[in-house]
Amino acid sequence: MTAIYPGSFDPVTNGHIDIIRRALCFADHVVVGVVSQNVYKKGMFTQEERVGLLREALSGVDGSERMEIREFSGLLAEFFDECGADVVVRGIRSPIEYEYDLAQTLANRQMNPRLETIFLPANPAHVFLSSSIVKEIAAFGGDIGAMVPDCVQSAMRNKRQ
Amino acid sequence: MTAIYPGSFDPVTNGHIDIIRRALCFADHVVVGVVSQNVYKKGMFTQEERVGLLREALSGVDGSERMEIREFSGLLAEFFDECGADVVVRGIRSPIEYEYDLAQTLANRQMNPRLETIFLPANPAHVFLSSSIVKEIAAFGGDIGAMVPDCVQSAMRNKRQ
Amino acid sequence: MTAIYPGSFDPVTNGHIDIIRRALCFADHVVVGVVSQNVYKKGMFTQEERVGLLREALSGVDGSERMEIREFSGLLAEFFDECGADVVVRGIRSPIEYEYDLAQTLANRQMNPRLETIFLPANPAHVFLSSSIVKEIAAFGGDIGAMVPDCVQSAMRNKRQ
Amino acid sequence: MTAIYPGSFDPVTNGHIDIIRRALCFADHVVVGVVSQNVYKKGMFTQEERVGLLREALSGVDGSERMEIREFSGLLAEFFDECGADVVVRGIRSPIEYEYDLAQTLANRQMNPRLETIFLPANPAHVFLSSSIVKEIAAFGGDIGAMVPDCVQSAMRNKRQ
Amino acid sequence: MTAIYPGSFDPVTNGHIDIIRRALCFADHVVVGVVSQNVYKKGMFTQEERVGLLREALSGVDGSERMEIREFSGLLAEFFDECGADVVVRGIRSPIEYEYDLAQTLANRQMNPRLETIFLPANPAHVFLSSSIVKEIAAFGGDIGAMVPDCVQSAMRNKRQ
Amino acid sequence: MTAIYPGSFDPVTNGHIDIIRRALCFADHVVVGVVSQNVYKKGMFTQEERVGLLREALSGVDGSERMEIREFSGLLAEFFDECGADVVVRGIRSPIEYEYDLAQTLANRQMNPRLETIFLPANPAHVFLSSSIVKEIAAFGGDIGAMVPDCVQSAMRNKRQ
Repeated sequence: MTAIYPGSFDPVTNGHIDIIRRALCFADHVVVGVVSQNVYKKGMFTQEERVGLLREALSGVDGSERMEIREFSGLLAEFFDECGADVVVRGIRSPIEYEYDLAQTLANRQMNPRLETIFLPANPAHVFLSSSIVKEIAAFGGDIGAMVPDCVQSAMRNKRQ
Repeated sequence: MTAIYPGSFDPVTNGHIDIIRRALCFADHVVVGVVSQNVYKKGMFTQEERVGLLREALSGVDGSERMEIREFSGLLAEFFDECGADVVVRGIRSPIEYEYDLAQTLANRQMNPRLETIFLPANPAHVFLSSSIVKEIAAFGGDIGAMVPDCVQSAMRNKRQ
Repeated sequence: MTAIYPGSFDPVTNGHIDIIRRALCFADHVVVGVVSQNVYKKGMFTQEERVGLLREALSGVDGSERMEIREFSGLLAEFFDECGADVVVRGIRSPIEYEYDLAQTLANRQMNPRLETIFLPANPAHVFLSSSIVKEIAAFGGDIGAMVPDCVQSAMRNKRQ
Repeated sequence: MTAIYPGSFDPVTNGHIDIIRRALCFADHVVVGVVSQNVYKKGMFTQEERVGLLREALSGVDGSERMEIREFSGLLAEFFDECGADVVVRGIRSPIEYEYDLAQTLANRQMNPRLETIFLPANPAHVFLSSSIVKEIAAFGGDIGAMVPDCVQSAMRNKRQ
Repeated sequence: MTAIYPGSFDPVTNGHIDIIRRALCFADHVVVGVVSQNVYKKGMFTQEERVGLLREALSGVDGSERMEIREFSGLLAEFFDECGADVVVRGIRSPIEYEYDLAQTLANRQMNPRLETIFLPANPAHVFLSSSIVKEIAAFGGDIGAMVPDCVQSAMRNKRQ
Repeated sequence: MTAIYPGSFDPVTNGHIDIIRRALCFADHVVVGVVSQNVYKKGMFTQEERVGLLREALSGVDGSERMEIREFSGLLAEFFDECGADVVVRGIRSPIEYEYDLAQTLANRQMNPRLETIFLPANPAHVFLSSSIVKEIAAFGGDIGAMVPDCVQSAMRNKRQ
């Protein structure tokens, strides 16, 4: 089974790493799909940087040889077929996040009836953890050491200088 | 009974059409109220274009002779009285959308105690369907044929050229 | 337009009265449908008593001459047609209650595609007010004077003696 | 990948069938786990009858040769290991159902850290469809033909005679 | 400030202990109010046993000399005044639990306008942890060692013999 | 007990006043913390103006001599220690607002384990009342007299001229 885990990963958090690690336990192959641009919010890192941070953060993860990091732009419904994927994986931190993702999920399926989406509940220790909150805390000089991989912490420190 | 169905309709979707069609089954008169501008998000279509697309999309609907498309700006609480309306109709796709609309509904009633709002649950086939998601899919070249009336699909294609 | 407002009304609360009063503002005719028995919870009042309390409580309401109190058993989807109704009215106190009622609503529509359900948000002063909570408070001797019509308060006092 | 789909299936609905059919698209092996008894609600069918109905209802499903119907009692956390499973599959019809199932999911994982649970959003056409609502409708003589497999409809008719 | 933490505590869990421990950090005095009986669900332990288990479980907690365990029956709105309390404390594990508790909270305030209720979010590690789920797991012989104090685990083992 | 009530108060509403008034009933000392800037949305009033309006609006409140209005920038987790606070107070109008605030709350606690947050349910009459909705209504010339203190109404009128 091939699973896609799509996102902007701006930047990758320990919550994302946990979902990928868990997906690798049941999927034969995991494609981490990094969207080329988010048209709605200005990013902190370029797509290239985000891919680089993911690569570094995931290098030690069990089963990472069965994982692939790919850039994509355009529709997930098309990227799904390009990858020969069986499922899209999404982490959910709350019922509200579920509702938002569900709209996207149903739209994707209308465009590509083969596209199946499975939801993994976030680790309770990560329910508050999002890329946005990490950036907000870092902007005020807060300690994000327990929230992101080391390489992300360094990269964010460099961005702010 | 006169019902107002307010919105920005940028653009009208099959979900909006379904709510109007259903409102016409129980209301004597339905006023589709097209807000003149949304101060929060930049629209795709002008108010004039949005009215035109609604008119075209609704021309074949049963009971459309009991329906009126009107532009309005300002407060719904005042437009309600101008139309001599009995109720405002809102479609709801999820409990979360209900909560958002409820805040607006209660504020409206505080301003105009006569203003009653009734909520119609969206057709399950439309729970994912919003003007925003249609624009997002179209922006990536996705097929929106099953989500909007034909005239909207053409108009969006022309916008992008 | 004929609206049905179904329920067990065991007993009728000020929240129910408010919904009926508001429905009478926009509907030509309101049928209060009192279910003959609730198979799931043992009631406090018999169907006959519940109808009697509704009748007394609603006698002074504006437009009550356009209202009818009817007993029914069986499927709402069938009672709807018997009454020649156009809509079912439901009051909602919370997003969670909406979700529960929605399942029933969609099941009803699958059985009777003509059956339309409209939801009225409860008056904020009544969001906590249910027949169950009234019975619970009364069971401990609490004051329910602000929660139910006078006739209900007396009837509950008599039941407990 | 081996997936367990646990439930009481009292009786199996078209919603359950849809989840099993979809799980068979991405899992190598699906174990439908029928709990021996539900201590909280009295069932309509015995465990043996429920297994029989599932077997009949699923006989025509694509990939059913990769599916197994097993009875279990006791803890899912132990049945999971007995089956050598990789994931538990749950269908979700609403954010509220997600929250309820999440508590069970987190408890399961505390008992068995290997136990992973994945959630599949119900087909929008099935969001109202539960074993309880089917039994309720049938109790009033309503038509459940579009909600359950044919064999279930017959079995329920026989039960009521 | 005096805070009441009411509940049936049948049995007390580590989640309850955590809320009491946190309340003792900001309140001068904490009254743990053990309801004499739950009219809705048959309990596992008598009121006397529940008080005993709370006493044992809380003996080592920081600040427990500022805590009192009291039995009460009847209305919280009255017990609140008897204790000379300033606030009622409730732990919340989910938005849905919040909504349920809110109804009770608003009813309490209508009966006693002095009654203020404050909500503490459960520790994320405890969001799944309820007395019911503990009893369910124990009924199937599951390990509840990480969910309840030691004295509760022993007491439950004895109950089942 | 010292409680912090943080916010942007742009502008202060009657809902905020109600929460402060209630916090003063159980806390010895209340610090109203006015954030120096909201990086996400452009404000209507400067920080100095917002503090001035709060001061004027709160001058008559019972116990206001035990209240302090302070500006802060940066992390709440640090301001909490600066104030020697025991709890952060948040008003919640809906389960959805609770979920959003919860993420912030858990992130704060990860940064400062001493930081405790307590939630107060909004008065039902205020569930719709937010600074945003007040600004939106005022922008269209609506009457906000029942939603904000008099001084705020005047200040907003002056802004628009």
